[in-house]
Amino acid sequence: MEQSSQPSHTLSMIPGPIEIHDSVAQAMASPSVPHVAGPFVKVFSETLKMVRQVLDNAPGKGQPLILSGGGTVGWDVVAANLIQPSEKVLVLNIGYFSDGFADCLAAYGASVDHVRFELGVAPDVDRSLEALKASEYRAVIITHVDTSTGVLSPLKDLALAIRKASPNTLIVVDGVCSVAVEEIRFDAWDLDVVLTASQKGLGAPAGLSVIQLSDRAIAAFENRTAPVHAYYVSLAKWLPVMRSNEDGKPMYFSTQAVQNILALHASMKLILDQGIDKTFAAHIAGSNKAKAAVAKLGLKQIPAKAEDQAHGLTTIYLPNGLTGPDIIPKLAGKGVFLAGGLIKGIAANYIRLGHMGVSVSRYSYQLDTALKALEETLGESGQSSTSA
Amino acid sequence: MEQSSQPSHTLSMIPGPIEIHDSVAQAMASPSVPHVAGPFVKVFSETLKMVRQVLDNAPGKGQPLILSGGGTVGWDVVAANLIQPSEKVLVLNIGYFSDGFADCLAAYGASVDHVRFELGVAPDVDRSLEALKASEYRAVIITHVDTSTGVLSPLKDLALAIRKASPNTLIVVDGVCSVAVEEIRFDAWDLDVVLTASQKGLGAPAGLSVIQLSDRAIAAFENRTAPVHAYYVSLAKWLPVMRSNEDGKPMYFSTQAVQNILALHASMKLILDQGIDKTFAAHIAGSNKAKAAVAKLGLKQIPAKAEDQAHGLTTIYLPNGLTGPDIIPKLAGKGVFLAGGLIKGIAANYIRLGHMGVSVSRYSYQLDTALKALEETLGESGQSSTSA
Repeated sequence: MEQSSQPSHTLSMIPGPIEIHDSVAQAMASPSVPHVAGPFVKVFSETLKMVRQVLDNAPGKGQPLILSGGGTVGWDVVAANLIQPSEKVLVLNIGYFSDGFADCLAAYGASVDHVRFELGVAPDVDRSLEALKASEYRAVIITHVDTSTGVLSPLKDLALAIRKASPNTLIVVDGVCSVAVEEIRFDAWDLDVVLTASQKGLGAPAGLSVIQLSDRAIAAFENRTAPVHAYYVSLAKWLPVMRSNEDGKPMYFSTQAVQNILALHASMKLILDQGIDKTFAAHIAGSNKAKAAVAKLGLKQIPAKAEDQAHGLTTIYLPNGLTGPDIIPKLAGKGVFLAGGLIKGIAANYIRLGHMGVSVSRYSYQLDTALKALEETLGESGQSSTSA
Repeated sequence: MEQSSQPSHTLSMIPGPIEIHDSVAQAMASPSVPHVAGPFVKVFSETLKMVRQVLDNAPGKGQPLILSGGGTVGWDVVAANLIQPSEKVLVLNIGYFSDGFADCLAAYGASVDHVRFELGVAPDVDRSLEALKASEYRAVIITHVDTSTGVLSPLKDLALAIRKASPNTLIVVDGVCSVAVEEIRFDAWDLDVVLTASQKGLGAPAGLSVIQLSDRAIAAFENRTAPVHAYYVSLAKWLPVMRSNEDGKPMYFSTQAVQNILALHASMKLILDQGIDKTFAAHIAGSNKAKAAVAKLGLKQIPAKAEDQAHGLTTIYLPNGLTGPDIIPKLAGKGVFLAGGLIKGIAANYIRLGHMGVSVSRYSYQLDTALKALEETLGESGQSSTSA
């Protein structure tokens, strides 16, 4: 196991931004290089190709995009370009981030329907197909992992069933908390959009929105008749820029975040050197360890069923009387940042432990540090279920 | 004079991304920290306050925003939030980037008029006021410096005259290539929007859009009746987040680019430690040196008149027969990246030398290196006007 040589710091064990590898930190500190200079374009081209590899998408099929911005930018790219005003979209809603994507779609004029699943419960294929029958949907939104609850959607089953039932509906995956953590086979599962952000499973600092489009998604954009009422997220601007840069030829629209892309390149190199299947396995192992530790403390997660539990984070209901605002500063005092809850009404009653990227692979001692801090803090509060 | 201790590299002497200071590179390599953790919120708060200082804007007046994204994001923030569909906007058009801002406004439904100034000529106050009379304009767009031509608009004169002639019109300044280079007095000149990007005069890597809004601009947003058809650039989302973070209280919409903000903090600290007036003076001195060297080589700039020439870059018409694509690789071979032209029809006939930030202040030897490389390259090409 490697040891980070970064300055000693409180570990970011939240569901993103996650801890970064030394080589990623070093790439962030790279000297300036013009966004259109040969040495950068070469790295940018490789980075775009690596996005395809991480998502199991073949060269020449569809197009990856890397934009400067938060993960949210991916929602805007979908809403502004792929859906025309009044077109119908179905959201398989599992919580906070499904609601967010829906709000974004509605802001651009889409007509949004929801199938709402109970708190902590993953989308059911049959209920999803039933809802799909209600209308001709331009797109279905699947939140692969909802970062607020730790619920994992059965992406493969949903995608294959939806494609069969409604061949022309775009299958749009919010993979913000799943890419490079949970298995995704972009081509084999016939997905149309997978969007994510740099600071989660991809293991780079925050600052990049990463989006993979299928040829079907690009055709939906090219065949739209309504004008796109957006500029920074316009695919008319970005598609030629990404194609050109992937092809090794500089092309400019809005200046890329050069150092962030160098860092993403370094991070994806680690992932692909390890192998994507081994990366998924490391997240399953880390997740199993975290969930076993939480069970041993007598604590429950928001998703009750094992198959509904994501592998990149664990949501932890606190024992009676304890709240996130009590516990989180104590954990920080022991060297680990955990995240509070996000779900209205119960936000104070649970915390979120992230275990993605280096914290379950090259620096897996970081997860052990977090679990030890959790056990000690609950013990000292005299509140863990085992001691209560 | 300080010496950079960054790895030896080809200097980025383009009008952004510019060279960075060692302390900025080190901040980019900071360990991960959650976007809502106390230590980061403290820095974010200070960074927002430093934006005010750089722009000479008093605390509590208006609101600065720092968003993850390219500088272009600032155009979208203006177009999506401050202008309602069909409202009229007047663009004082001096080139490529004025056209770009106008395209962005039109994409969101604004009705855009232009006063077009000749290539290389700054906006004339009288002609601008004349055009302003044609209609009730919601906003006037001033491209302070057009990065494609090196033309500098007389911002103070324009702003004071426009405010007098049309008190309710928003004065929107594209300061992408001017903030922390050219004098800007946000409050004293009664400006409504100044937008920029991190990788120019502010001296940080690319990846952040920086926007200062006046109370008048915020009121225009708050009083609009038409819905905002955008999400990532929505002021309804970002204003509370920025106010809260400036006030030291974490609040989340879309994850901030944490390391980029730490780097911007480091960079603005250098600027403010030096003093903003000394920073302007350093850019005037660097610009004078660059323009004298270009004149000595017998070469002309796009802006013919000295008062129309920006202080952060110099555009250089190449001697007969030489093109950017010939010269730029030779300059790179001598250790400096310069930028090609952007103006249709003459793009190959001129190059652009950037001289902003550390390259004219702490590491001012970098500008000397660039000027020497330029002189040598033109000499070796046997094409400089002095030898031709």
